Amino acid sequence: MKALDISNLNITIVGIGLIGGSYAKAIRKNIKINKLWAIDINMDALNEAKYTGVIDDGFTNSQFPLENSDIVILCTYPNITIDFLKENMMYFKKKALITDTLGMKNKIVSETLSVIRDDLEFIGGHPMSGKESNGYNYSDADIFKNAQYILTPNKTTSSNSLNLLKQIITSIGFSDIIEMSSQTHDEKVAFTSQLPHIIACTLMNSSNLNNNLQCVGGSFKDATRVADINSELWSELIFENKDNILNELNNFIVDITNIHNIIKSDDKDNLVSFLNISKERRKKMNI
Amino acid sequence: MKALDISNLNITIVGIGLIGGSYAKAIRKNIKINKLWAIDINMDALNEAKYTGVIDDGFTNSQFPLENSDIVILCTYPNITIDFLKENMMYFKKKALITDTLGMKNKIVSETLSVIRDDLEFIGGHPMSGKESNGYNYSDADIFKNAQYILTPNKTTSSNSLNLLKQIITSIGFSDIIEMSSQTHDEKVAFTSQLPHIIACTLMNSSNLNNNLQCVGGSFKDATRVADINSELWSELIFENKDNILNELNNFIVDITNIHNIIKSDDKDNLVSFLNISKERRKKMNI
Repeated sequence: MKALDISNLNITIVGIGLIGGSYAKAIRKNIKINKLWAIDINMDALNEAKYTGVIDDGFTNSQFPLENSDIVILCTYPNITIDFLKENMMYFKKKALITDTLGMKNKIVSETLSVIRDDLEFIGGHPMSGKESNGYNYSDADIFKNAQYILTPNKTTSSNSLNLLKQIITSIGFSDIIEMSSQTHDEKVAFTSQLPHIIACTLMNSSNLNNNLQCVGGSFKDATRVADINSELWSELIFENKDNILNELNNFIVDITNIHNIIKSDDKDNLVSFLNISKERRKKMNI
Repeated sequence: MKALDISNLNITIVGIGLIGGSYAKAIRKNIKINKLWAIDINMDALNEAKYTGVIDDGFTNSQFPLENSDIVILCTYPNITIDFLKENMMYFKKKALITDTLGMKNKIVSETLSVIRDDLEFIGGHPMSGKESNGYNYSDADIFKNAQYILTPNKTTSSNSLNLLKQIITSIGFSDIIEMSSQTHDEKVAFTSQLPHIIACTLMNSSNLNNNLQCVGGSFKDATRVADINSELWSELIFENKDNILNELNNFIVDITNIHNIIKSDDKDNLVSFLNISKERRKKMNI
């Protein structure tokens, strides 16, 4: 594949932690651009990124990079993101394209659209990849490889901006880009991401755990891998998507109570059918 | 480490599927023995193992290999294992050591001890490793590497036999051997193995799944990896450990209902504390 060449454009990453750092490394590795900058309050991370050649320069003051960037990628925590946008709205370069990387889309997209300048464009985004650890030191361009990226274009989105963003996402390693509304996104990830995270944390909070650590096999390790969680970020994400998550938890409690009852009543036919459905569907997922 | 040399002994593996095949490959690779044989009804698997040099010979009739084996490793399904022992009890070589590899220990150990000849020894065993796929073609000596092995010695177990079995287990790659009673084993694995398997299958049986497959990230993939399950084997395992499993399912439903209520009541302090406990404990597991 020919490398993406947008060497007339400047890009700024806001927040150079795990996702922001990985984004910066993946852009540096795969895309020709004019300047790649980062904004953060963490000077150590900025210096590390600058002196290893990942970014051209790092800033704790947003004015200069925002005034000169065609594309701004927000990789900050939920509660900081909207404040950052509001406080810095006057600095953004005319016609700049802004995107974010938050795991929740409805709130950030609607709040941003209500405060954004008319000449700017905001497209919500969610890279479906991550690691347990956080911080720039754990960032890695390869975490994006073969992962999915969800974009939530809105009525103000131009096809030019959407296509440019898609080119960048594909160039840095993502295998699929899925477009949907921000509401649909939040409904879906309540099931595919937040429910398994909450289950993993519930297992780790079990009062049985300490007695049983010596008999842990692969199934328990896998089921709890994501339980080494960023609690600050996740408490925000969970409350932001509260209604959808409560809905999924209710469904799951009904489902697992149902299989409890199947086992309790020695209903072998239904247990085997439950296991067979599971086996067939999981095999088909092929991941 | 010096390779284990028991070149005066013959070993027979009964059932050369995923675990039996992996056991045979791991013994061939790591231990000097006199003869390594396998018993199965699947001629294709026996021939494949024989002609690739994994076993010295394969048998569909048990008499010869049992009459001449010092160690017999049962790698069969639960409902076949006890029948196999009963039907072939007269063939076992005098003073032979027999062990099994089943995920449930209490029933198999007590039933075996009630039918076994006085001159034979039976020690229950459970290699805490596996793969989703089953059958000899998927067997692999490496699945044992760095995994735990549980042994359930009983009042008839001699230290000589226990030590020999431990030497074999260590030689084929397992990192830890844990000894406990068969009752304790079954209580523990209800939490560490069967609960995560049932959770994984419950997620795959969700009516939400088909609508959401396009937004699946790492957490869902990991949470459901073991859902590609051997349904025949697992329906037996689940009913054999029914009481312990129902107990764990009840505890888990209480725990997840509790976190549902914490989210519902916007109880941020308790949510953050729940996530922090999860994070600390999972980090400490270090696996």
